[in-house]
Amino acid sequence: EEPAGKFSRCNSGGEGLRAAPRTGRRRPGRGKIVATGVCHTDLYHLFEGMHKDGFPSVLGHEGAGIVESVGPGVTEFQPGDKVIPLFISQCRECRFCKNPKTNQASGRHAMMASADSRFTCKGKKVLQFMGTSTFSQYTVMNQIAIAKIDPTAPLDKVCLLGCGICTGFGAAVNTAKVEPGSTCAVFGLGAVGLAAVMGCKSAGAKRIFAVDINPDKFEKAKVFGATDFVNPKDHDKPISQVLAEMTNGGVDYSLECVGNVTVMRSALESCVKGWGVSVLVGWTDLYDVATRPIQLIAGRTWKGSLFGGFKSKDGVPQMVKAYLDKKVKLDEFITHNMTLGQVNDAIELMKHGKCSLSSVSTPLSFLLQKWPQLERRVRNSI
Amino acid sequence: EEPAGKFSRCNSGGEGLRAAPRTGRRRPGRGKIVATGVCHTDLYHLFEGMHKDGFPSVLGHEGAGIVESVGPGVTEFQPGDKVIPLFISQCRECRFCKNPKTNQASGRHAMMASADSRFTCKGKKVLQFMGTSTFSQYTVMNQIAIAKIDPTAPLDKVCLLGCGICTGFGAAVNTAKVEPGSTCAVFGLGAVGLAAVMGCKSAGAKRIFAVDINPDKFEKAKVFGATDFVNPKDHDKPISQVLAEMTNGGVDYSLECVGNVTVMRSALESCVKGWGVSVLVGWTDLYDVATRPIQLIAGRTWKGSLFGGFKSKDGVPQMVKAYLDKKVKLDEFITHNMTLGQVNDAIELMKHGKCSLSSVSTPLSFLLQKWPQLERRVRNSI
Repeated sequence: EEPAGKFSRCNSGGEGLRAAPRTGRRRPGRGKIVATGVCHTDLYHLFEGMHKDGFPSVLGHEGAGIVESVGPGVTEFQPGDKVIPLFISQCRECRFCKNPKTNQASGRHAMMASADSRFTCKGKKVLQFMGTSTFSQYTVMNQIAIAKIDPTAPLDKVCLLGCGICTGFGAAVNTAKVEPGSTCAVFGLGAVGLAAVMGCKSAGAKRIFAVDINPDKFEKAKVFGATDFVNPKDHDKPISQVLAEMTNGGVDYSLECVGNVTVMRSALESCVKGWGVSVLVGWTDLYDVATRPIQLIAGRTWKGSLFGGFKSKDGVPQMVKAYLDKKVKLDEFITHNMTLGQVNDAIELMKHGKCSLSSVSTPLSFLLQKWPQLERRVRNSI
Repeated sequence: EEPAGKFSRCNSGGEGLRAAPRTGRRRPGRGKIVATGVCHTDLYHLFEGMHKDGFPSVLGHEGAGIVESVGPGVTEFQPGDKVIPLFISQCRECRFCKNPKTNQASGRHAMMASADSRFTCKGKKVLQFMGTSTFSQYTVMNQIAIAKIDPTAPLDKVCLLGCGICTGFGAAVNTAKVEPGSTCAVFGLGAVGLAAVMGCKSAGAKRIFAVDINPDKFEKAKVFGATDFVNPKDHDKPISQVLAEMTNGGVDYSLECVGNVTVMRSALESCVKGWGVSVLVGWTDLYDVATRPIQLIAGRTWKGSLFGGFKSKDGVPQMVKAYLDKKVKLDEFITHNMTLGQVNDAIELMKHGKCSLSSVSTPLSFLLQKWPQLERRVRNSI
């Protein structure tokens, strides 16, 4: 274990990757990351984001840790506090934070690598991915981007609330606002999709259609509340037509948890006219998403959300409590327990998971915990 | 004036276009049309809809009239009742009518020519456009598609509530649900767009941006409540960027009242992230509408509505009352008073209006009233 103030070592090149504990205004100082998940957004940044200014950076954004030291003026946190880093901040001051309709702050909530990093390597700045960088033993965060959680929470489980589970669950509960007795369809049964299924179930949906081209996912989806299972490969017709026939015109709510613009269109068009609501949950920004205007004019609503619409500092501790109260599941999402030294193996597993599922699903989150040695996730600028 | 039961004459060919008064279950029988507006949807059907089975038909769908006779079992209407024909029916029985979230019935509400017509010409069936066909002295309607209105209402004004004015006003009030103190942008200042401006004003919007490439429209828009005027031709930047700069990030609500997929995209992207709502009001179904997923993921909502979301039988009489109570304007929309014999001239005026505005606006409605002779709007099947 690294003592406070001492820099961790990179495992390649022998140079130190430093998470400098120097503090500024409203910084909680340095926090020790205890556990982190891996998420396709990390992969997206690596391979698809094409942000030429986004490297080198420390990836990882779905973690949990313990505050090690706090900067001057920080009163909200104490060393020893259990926390979850937030890639969407909540400053409580801006017009976005003050508006109950959104969880998106006007401050620091970049979806790509932030230049405001305390990481250095070989004397050069290394970027902090999504303001968090949880593939590191230590990170330095702004206090508006940290949620204090119940001290009894197991960090190796609740770390998943730092991204995927809140994203899927909240998309159903907060963004779609699924109603009791309704019918829902969830496209893509990765961690986010399974969490969306759990959100639909929690909101009282009567039927939850789990849609994936990998039928191996259906067993897991059942655990989270799915009632019907549809593999688009089993049908010659468009999946929107299949669902319309199964539901007398379409589902009340659909959630796209893949990040594929073709699936986004299918999800919208699977909704019933008049009041159907479709939510974009999967992340992509490489291509346009399209539909015929009549789909919307006929009364469908197309929405999207980031982090499931949760105001992050308020919502994450509530979700931790819901887990401790056994109202939401987390353990069931975890397929592997690995060390930070195995982070590259975890990324490979995720990549292969993606390949085997083609582009319609993301794999379950992997849990990385109690790593003995710091792993640097750095890619040179392109 | 045509007596009941006598067929009107076509003005070409000498053959009679018949609106047969024979009645069936739940038919109100025949109604005399006293006034009608012309609307771009008529033109759309003629030139763009390309419904090869949609002709020959009697166009017109924005009218007002008087019940002449009712069929067996009809108790809701009496001869002499003032009525407005409805192109969206309200049966009060289906799951759509029973759901407060939508005005779209599962019954008879076709947007294109219905085969369920009582019109004949030269012994052949002539289709009833949108279930109404108001470019005729007489029409036969289903009682679920007729709204009884205040007997003191002037039919030559309230006929406009049969389509455009309810569509624009309701899109702001019912679909976007514009809130007091908000900022709005209305794209396209035809009758529908002006009615949307009036709806935003009625809902208490603080700033209403009127957007059109024809600055001649701005004076009229001011009458209905617009506070700011933007001509996209005056700017090199995308209009979404211009509006974002004028509003610190975008408007709270935008309404596309043109029916152009490029303008639809601009309208969405002119909304503020987090809570911006954009509504498709203009009608088109020839091309896809597209945007980048991030526009929705960032918290914008994309919706659409037909007939402004008004449950037709409930909403139209309320709007007539609002007009009589001087809460909504109608007289100010009317630019021409013409006879039914001049309907082709009215259509030409509308077409030229469209041309002079390129594709970003529709012209004001023209009023046709008290025509001396029946005009047949028939085009052969293509």
